[in-house]
Amino acid sequence: MAAKTKVPQATIRRLSFYLRCLNSLEEKGVTLISSHELAKLLHINPAQVRKDLAYFGEFGKRGVGYTIIKLRDHLIKILGLKKQRLVGIVGAGGRLGHALALYKGFERRNFKVVALFDKDPQVIGQKFDHHEVVHIDKLPKLVKDLKIEILIFTVPVEAVQEIYEMVQTTDVRAVLNFAPTKLGSTTQICIHNVDVAIELESLSYHLNNLDLDNTPGLFEPEMLAE
Amino acid sequence: MAAKTKVPQATIRRLSFYLRCLNSLEEKGVTLISSHELAKLLHINPAQVRKDLAYFGEFGKRGVGYTIIKLRDHLIKILGLKKQRLVGIVGAGGRLGHALALYKGFERRNFKVVALFDKDPQVIGQKFDHHEVVHIDKLPKLVKDLKIEILIFTVPVEAVQEIYEMVQTTDVRAVLNFAPTKLGSTTQICIHNVDVAIELESLSYHLNNLDLDNTPGLFEPEMLAE
Repeated sequence: MAAKTKVPQATIRRLSFYLRCLNSLEEKGVTLISSHELAKLLHINPAQVRKDLAYFGEFGKRGVGYTIIKLRDHLIKILGLKKQRLVGIVGAGGRLGHALALYKGFERRNFKVVALFDKDPQVIGQKFDHHEVVHIDKLPKLVKDLKIEILIFTVPVEAVQEIYEMVQTTDVRAVLNFAPTKLGSTTQICIHNVDVAIELESLSYHLNNLDLDNTPGLFEPEMLAE
Repeated sequence: MAAKTKVPQATIRRLSFYLRCLNSLEEKGVTLISSHELAKLLHINPAQVRKDLAYFGEFGKRGVGYTIIKLRDHLIKILGLKKQRLVGIVGAGGRLGHALALYKGFERRNFKVVALFDKDPQVIGQKFDHHEVVHIDKLPKLVKDLKIEILIFTVPVEAVQEIYEMVQTTDVRAVLNFAPTKLGSTTQICIHNVDVAIELESLSYHLNNLDLDNTPGLFEPEMLAE
């Protein structure tokens, strides 16, 4: 199911949205959908839907559309969501880390938080939702023992580089970084950076253009950005 | 400073990273930088730096590079960051809303949280960092009185549609949505959706391709995705 060509990150994100949409249609008993209908539900262009799916093969039938269960199962395979992915949170004692440690939405999507790490002696030993916060020094061993595949970083910016270097000695291959500094992916580790201030700055850009030039064309929904 | 053509969202995000990089160089007393050096610091392609900046005019001098203070000031103007942007948090009583309400990183970037909203009677009246949580019904009036430009939604998924409809009756033109459902931008309101599960799913895609086909080319740092 590996794509032959490099698939844009925005396409991969949209696959998740297609999947959610198909799941909810299936729950409603719908069995077939056209790219037009799917696009309409997601406020995007039908050509974009076809282009995104074309990276991974031929799914629909011309004039008939997509069989919802089939396409859904394909997307689950493409996104590697059949297998439960184990997750650790680094910086679980902070407010955001704590919020994520207690977030109930991950398991529904087949991700399971199995370890919480921190450096702060006041937090170590505390239990959040059955998991005890352990010292960051135990990370390499726990990653190995528990087979953790993804780490979420919610550490202060000054701590992130050192932790990233430690993580590079482990088998972790994916990191979701909330620390407000950009970590670069390597050939070994894929990093996604989520930075709330960057999101606000890019909203500010839109507000600024609105002040100067109120044309709807300037509003580009994030999902359409490629 | 409004761009003539539609600027990709990924370019706008990179402008924020350029700005941070220039700020830190300026603090170190550096005065000039080439697109090659800037690109290297941000792990991206020099052609990408030039292409991104070209949307907004001519900044550098061939063979000389960019004057750091000048480029930085241009970026601040382009991103509309000269003006402080006022922010409200909707769902401030939840864990994530609470974490964001207390986050110290916004003011440094010229965003100021000035109002906290919730629906939960147990939270209303509580003070987080000098701001009292008020009932969501007061949102339209407070947006007007305080001139709030950006709202952050950290509400449960079942509440988000109703709140979005209420916000559409106000002068708010930008929303950062953390509720796990995709809100679409309109001609009036620019929405950015941040969905942690979507980020995890897209990391899962990378892990899946790693399982099947360990080629470095498949790792595409988010910032490069266009």
